[in-house]
Amino acid sequence: MAKKNKMVEAITSMDEDFAQWYTDICKKAELVEYTSVKGCMVIRPYGYAIWENIQADLDRRFKELGHENVCMPMFIPESLLNKEKDHVEGFAPEVAWVTHGGSEKLEERLCVRPTSETLFCEHYANIVHSYRDLPKLYNQWVSVVRWEKTTRPFLRSREFLWQEGHTIHETAEEAVHETEQMLNVYADFCEKSLAMPVVKGKKTESDKFAGAVSTYAIEALMHDGKALQAGTSHYFGDGFAKAFGIQFTSRENKLEYPHQTSWGVTTRLIGAIIMTHGDDSGLVLPPAVAPVQAVIIPIQQFKEGVLEKANELAEVLKAAGVRVKVDDRDQSPGWKFSEHEMRGVPVRIEVGPKDIEGGKCVVATRYNGEKQDVSFEDLAEKINDLLKNEIPKGMFEKAAANRTNKTYQCKTIEEINAALTEKGDGFVEAMWCGDEACEDKVKELTGAGSRCIPFEQHEISDKCVCCGKPAKCMVLWGKAY
Amino acid sequence: MAKKNKMVEAITSMDEDFAQWYTDICKKAELVEYTSVKGCMVIRPYGYAIWENIQADLDRRFKELGHENVCMPMFIPESLLNKEKDHVEGFAPEVAWVTHGGSEKLEERLCVRPTSETLFCEHYANIVHSYRDLPKLYNQWVSVVRWEKTTRPFLRSREFLWQEGHTIHETAEEAVHETEQMLNVYADFCEKSLAMPVVKGKKTESDKFAGAVSTYAIEALMHDGKALQAGTSHYFGDGFAKAFGIQFTSRENKLEYPHQTSWGVTTRLIGAIIMTHGDDSGLVLPPAVAPVQAVIIPIQQFKEGVLEKANELAEVLKAAGVRVKVDDRDQSPGWKFSEHEMRGVPVRIEVGPKDIEGGKCVVATRYNGEKQDVSFEDLAEKINDLLKNEIPKGMFEKAAANRTNKTYQCKTIEEINAALTEKGDGFVEAMWCGDEACEDKVKELTGAGSRCIPFEQHEISDKCVCCGKPAKCMVLWGKAY
Repeated sequence: MAKKNKMVEAITSMDEDFAQWYTDICKKAELVEYTSVKGCMVIRPYGYAIWENIQADLDRRFKELGHENVCMPMFIPESLLNKEKDHVEGFAPEVAWVTHGGSEKLEERLCVRPTSETLFCEHYANIVHSYRDLPKLYNQWVSVVRWEKTTRPFLRSREFLWQEGHTIHETAEEAVHETEQMLNVYADFCEKSLAMPVVKGKKTESDKFAGAVSTYAIEALMHDGKALQAGTSHYFGDGFAKAFGIQFTSRENKLEYPHQTSWGVTTRLIGAIIMTHGDDSGLVLPPAVAPVQAVIIPIQQFKEGVLEKANELAEVLKAAGVRVKVDDRDQSPGWKFSEHEMRGVPVRIEVGPKDIEGGKCVVATRYNGEKQDVSFEDLAEKINDLLKNEIPKGMFEKAAANRTNKTYQCKTIEEINAALTEKGDGFVEAMWCGDEACEDKVKELTGAGSRCIPFEQHEISDKCVCCGKPAKCMVLWGKAY
Repeated sequence: MAKKNKMVEAITSMDEDFAQWYTDICKKAELVEYTSVKGCMVIRPYGYAIWENIQADLDRRFKELGHENVCMPMFIPESLLNKEKDHVEGFAPEVAWVTHGGSEKLEERLCVRPTSETLFCEHYANIVHSYRDLPKLYNQWVSVVRWEKTTRPFLRSREFLWQEGHTIHETAEEAVHETEQMLNVYADFCEKSLAMPVVKGKKTESDKFAGAVSTYAIEALMHDGKALQAGTSHYFGDGFAKAFGIQFTSRENKLEYPHQTSWGVTTRLIGAIIMTHGDDSGLVLPPAVAPVQAVIIPIQQFKEGVLEKANELAEVLKAAGVRVKVDDRDQSPGWKFSEHEMRGVPVRIEVGPKDIEGGKCVVATRYNGEKQDVSFEDLAEKINDLLKNEIPKGMFEKAAANRTNKTYQCKTIEEINAALTEKGDGFVEAMWCGDEACEDKVKELTGAGSRCIPFEQHEISDKCVCCGKPAKCMVLWGKAY
């Protein structure tokens, strides 16, 4: 009964200690487990099933736009990593180095990929010769390694799972279009499938990806008011092509450099789901990525006909495309309620002898705790409507309301500090002159760094929040994960 | 037009140089490309799409049997690898060692997983406490690294993709059943989905996996008469549990050691497909894993109505569940025929003005080169029948006939040598006394090592092929990839 006690035991509340609350959910919803390799974790079946659903959804979107999956080696020779100056400066300090194969010292050490631009570039140089070979629209689902000092499950780990898209194009226009298109794919996925509102924007110069001309990002606001970068998309211009000697014969029969992009999202999205939707009872999963979308809990399951009815309803729901499970274990219904709440199952269906008599069951929705009676004949339609419409819409609105409450328009550094102190951490919308010194100073004085320059601009004032000189744009600021 | 010439240029014939023929197919069917990391390759979109189809098929089979996917770290601390004596002796000589993170030397070096038994064991020790926690039926799809000296695409590379199943059970019986069950899953997959006949059997003591009580394997015969191990399944007993201190409270309330298994197949299966079914025109893909199952080639595609008809037929086939593509590029039909033959597309559909007039098209099957007219109204049914029945059956029979022709029953070493010399490399069925010295001697004198002790035994003689003493079993011998 050790397990039973563990599950019923409440987790730390969000308000008391948000970081501990987060860790509790990761452990008690059985998403991850620690290992003896510092900063690396086991993604357990329930956590991995969420990632598989994220993968399937995104992979379908990528393929519909013509992208193809490939697989590059996990190792990068040091000389290859060194080819693009900005890129190596950005990544070399945080890579893991392989120096020995078996008992032999390698002639050249290899890093475990922190990202694969250099490998894709080497490959492009081999296979791209003519405009007829372009574009190449590639993606891979792999893990990468970055030797972080401090780590947290999903948010920052030394090894993490991700997809990295890499594309190469005839023209700058095409490549810029691809960069924007993929940011839009990420934003749409986050808002529709994860019910998580995001701000689309461009990173400032100081915050760009190592080697990029420009980096676009989607930024989300977590429940505690901290900002989380949920996905990025980079435009490289022809810088990598020049560094790696990738050239093609153009339609005009000239030798030209192609233009490249890369874009990625990671298992960090699972952290974002936890911190956007979770509550003091545990995880709250968006139906699109929930491994179990509806759990049926038989009440007084030993009574004749109850389990049979539960299984019958499960068959009906399965046939209607719902990922459904009957929980017929020995534990009490109350214990099961808690466990499935902890695991964030979007819909709970209770069915007991009295319900069966009345030809109906009780349907509870996880994100708002509401319960309603639904007749057996309406069940499939109702559950599908909940999973596809009501729940994602309701979850999105709840998260968006939280973000609205925690987004502050500020004209001065003082206003920023006042807002963050009085109302707590959140997004700050404030104007910026474009000077890196001001960007650094805002962070120094308020703790809130620049997250992005949102595509949707609105004028808070005409002066830089820091120096008072004429403003160039509105920046979204926040404390980051 | 460099590309055009490259495709039309014939590949090396199998009979002339089998190894070069194999490499030619890997490159010209665009399955892989070499990289500057020795022994590591890029799996290109066409090769990776085959792997995705293999994954989807096997993953469905695993999940139907209750297995769940997880993801372990890619690193194993040296002390963890050292915990099981036989295991570390088997793998330590061929692992890649990470010694530095960024610019800092690690306190303990980490190997890149060559296989993940040790990580799973560490995890089990954390999460398995009671018989209620058993069994755990886990699998992961990852890449592993083994620092091989000589490498060949798919067959032997320093990094390769695979799945590794890891399970842990209350009793030895359950674990043995799992080991056998998964071998049967692999055999069924190879025979049904890959049209590749395999022999199921047990490895001899000297050929077991490092740390296993027993290793089962499926062995296939390649077109050149060499044997290829296509999948393995290991029973570990409680050896790992003892080494890692994994114990559980049994139903009788005693502290016991659980029993474990692991099982895996790799991207080597793609090599097996090439060498089982390929011919001098290139790759021949089994329909179940072919990225494109049918290609429609419009003849005189500039003529009115031809392209429209080709696209219309494609829609009909798509709706019938066929992975179909129209090749409407500028090149000549003949050039396209060669290219799709090289890529092993199972079915080619030709449709031109005369066909349209006659209400039919020409259907050519890749594996036997046969052509037939099929009326438009029968097309979907006919193609599905070809892809699901006729072609896999025909391919299997062709491969099985090759295996039968190249399987020799021998009573003496002299007979083995005579068979291998006269008829060429192949499987040898010969009796064995069970003594390792005889096993070694057969290999030394004939070049053919023991592949497995087949589950299906038949008596070739009652004496050991080597020493003449009473035989214990029939062994399958062969030269291995």
